[in-house]
Amino acid sequence: MTITLLTDFGTADYFVPAMKGVIHSICPSAQLIDLTHEVPPQDISSGAFTLAAAAECFPAGTIHLAIVDPGVGSARRPLIVEADQHFFVGPDNGLFSLVVAHAKSVRFIHAERAEFFLPQRSATFHGRDVFAPLAGWLARGVSLASLGSLIDDAVRLDWPAPQWDDVRQCWIGQIIHIDHFGNCITNLTAAEFKGETALQVGEHLVTQFGTHYAEAQKRDELFGYLGSAGYWEIGMWCASAAERFQIYREELVSIL
Amino acid sequence: MTITLLTDFGTADYFVPAMKGVIHSICPSAQLIDLTHEVPPQDISSGAFTLAAAAECFPAGTIHLAIVDPGVGSARRPLIVEADQHFFVGPDNGLFSLVVAHAKSVRFIHAERAEFFLPQRSATFHGRDVFAPLAGWLARGVSLASLGSLIDDAVRLDWPAPQWDDVRQCWIGQIIHIDHFGNCITNLTAAEFKGETALQVGEHLVTQFGTHYAEAQKRDELFGYLGSAGYWEIGMWCASAAERFQIYREELVSIL
Amino acid sequence: MTITLLTDFGTADYFVPAMKGVIHSICPSAQLIDLTHEVPPQDISSGAFTLAAAAECFPAGTIHLAIVDPGVGSARRPLIVEADQHFFVGPDNGLFSLVVAHAKSVRFIHAERAEFFLPQRSATFHGRDVFAPLAGWLARGVSLASLGSLIDDAVRLDWPAPQWDDVRQCWIGQIIHIDHFGNCITNLTAAEFKGETALQVGEHLVTQFGTHYAEAQKRDELFGYLGSAGYWEIGMWCASAAERFQIYREELVSIL
Repeated sequence: MTITLLTDFGTADYFVPAMKGVIHSICPSAQLIDLTHEVPPQDISSGAFTLAAAAECFPAGTIHLAIVDPGVGSARRPLIVEADQHFFVGPDNGLFSLVVAHAKSVRFIHAERAEFFLPQRSATFHGRDVFAPLAGWLARGVSLASLGSLIDDAVRLDWPAPQWDDVRQCWIGQIIHIDHFGNCITNLTAAEFKGETALQVGEHLVTQFGTHYAEAQKRDELFGYLGSAGYWEIGMWCASAAERFQIYREELVSIL
Repeated sequence: MTITLLTDFGTADYFVPAMKGVIHSICPSAQLIDLTHEVPPQDISSGAFTLAAAAECFPAGTIHLAIVDPGVGSARRPLIVEADQHFFVGPDNGLFSLVVAHAKSVRFIHAERAEFFLPQRSATFHGRDVFAPLAGWLARGVSLASLGSLIDDAVRLDWPAPQWDDVRQCWIGQIIHIDHFGNCITNLTAAEFKGETALQVGEHLVTQFGTHYAEAQKRDELFGYLGSAGYWEIGMWCASAAERFQIYREELVSIL
Repeated sequence: MTITLLTDFGTADYFVPAMKGVIHSICPSAQLIDLTHEVPPQDISSGAFTLAAAAECFPAGTIHLAIVDPGVGSARRPLIVEADQHFFVGPDNGLFSLVVAHAKSVRFIHAERAEFFLPQRSATFHGRDVFAPLAGWLARGVSLASLGSLIDDAVRLDWPAPQWDDVRQCWIGQIIHIDHFGNCITNLTAAEFKGETALQVGEHLVTQFGTHYAEAQKRDELFGYLGSAGYWEIGMWCASAAERFQIYREELVSIL
């Protein structure tokens, strides 16, 4: 059984290995694979984006433990989601909005059975005390029905969708993610844009398009391409577009 | 058999994977789990804190390979510690002080048998050449008695304990760790403080207390809570207390 | 079967876990071990150095998936290298130059059989769509002959070698890597230098030499030692030589 882990915990503290130790104590045979622990602190929508893009590459049956949890200790519910035979364990705060958006079959379980948590439960580290044990017991074969009860009111994020601007007569999207290389991922897909005209981000125009970085003819200028997550991206050849052109997350992008 | 790894080596160099390759060559079935490799360079007491908090979540029988080793190549001894059926491998410089402080049974072994090191031994990378092989052979089932001899003079750190101030008639502790979120962990426990009055750190007063971040009524002010490692922590809701209020490690904290 | 991973992808994005998910879908029993994902973006020669130093610690039969790939999507070929019974999968751009330089037997295979790639292939993420599947199928036991055809014109980097300066009558090397601790690794080996005289880097002289950091008598000055990768290094005791003395990669180092 494979358990992946995604958090905003960073990798310098005892947080992530404590969770792994708990899982390992409950289900020693579970294979642990990190998605990332560098989600920006408390940034649920950024976590939702990375989780969706990474989880879809794993096989059915994988358990994804995902924690970005500013409401830890409060009344927000511990959640288990089954979406197309993938299992997701984490807080009920919208973190799973994107993975369920495209799923054919989805079940939400409120994991309320405290006998599957650690006996001593802190109020600030449910990753170790609540979610890691749940993932461990799930990997050990405990059924969803034993872990909690079905709910239909799980929290969902309003995911930013491209908007049609009636005045300017164009689609307006936004930058939803900046990656490690400084490429700027928009929420525009092939449905809104085919790369035939131009994109505007802030004061900058993107007029050259292609399929891969080395195709950029003007290497000091922005370059647009349909990225590997299915969204239009704005990048540069061997340089950080975000840094060079000061492009930030949530900035608007218009199709001209 | 599971081997965890904690170092100050960072994750950009060949240091950590070289150690994993050596272990893997000796004991291919060992499961390798990173604790962290971001201990501040040469900071033995920070490593001791993270090691203790992470290791306690793993089951008995786990081997913990831990290396923060400014004295590499000098006469400091390679050490294997058995503490409550956990095994620790690393330099004899106090790194294991905290894990043994709370253990019921402890044995220290000076690992002096060079036939269990790599044949070519560098003077600057005992992680690869001495400690990784020791962990690998231990995982393979070589006995402690074969690896070295019992000692009773292992180096111990003076761990900072809260002090009672007779003049001011109060407990004085200190910040022992700043975590990824900017929460400031003190060395004060429930024995010294119940959250009934106030804490002073530098010029700042902490007057609101609770069990979890979302309880902070005044969200721009410091908030105290008994943290997941058993120590009082000073944080903020969805923000870095260390950065906002310029709080540093080793700063004193008084109970008013 | 063990697969290691080295990239310049960082660990904050979905890139690395997406690759692991693909491998895991093809070969669930493969054990995945990260070398590093912090190769400086697009820096093929830095990747080549770290790959060589880490890979040599793994046993024969290991598959090393290594991707630093500024030419992704262009005509550069996907490559599988067999070098002394280690397997390397990645782009044909010189990344494997150093691992093959010291190998006794080497074969290069152009992995051109698209049925072993993912069916939907992006132009910007061959790590997920081309190289991860190749590594997965190789781990599953597919033969090199099935994956592509032998070539003899794989790209090789000109690795910087020490030069003999006829005028100054001395060897001149360079800094090829700065490690996590700020130690500066040169390309000078025991063949050029025995630590008997002095090294000059920029305006700074290194006149104290030894085997390990604690031997440095003058702790505020640079200290030279033959490092764990077989090259002379310039460091300091418990401090970053690179930062303190402003030493950069590619700076020249003369033996005086």
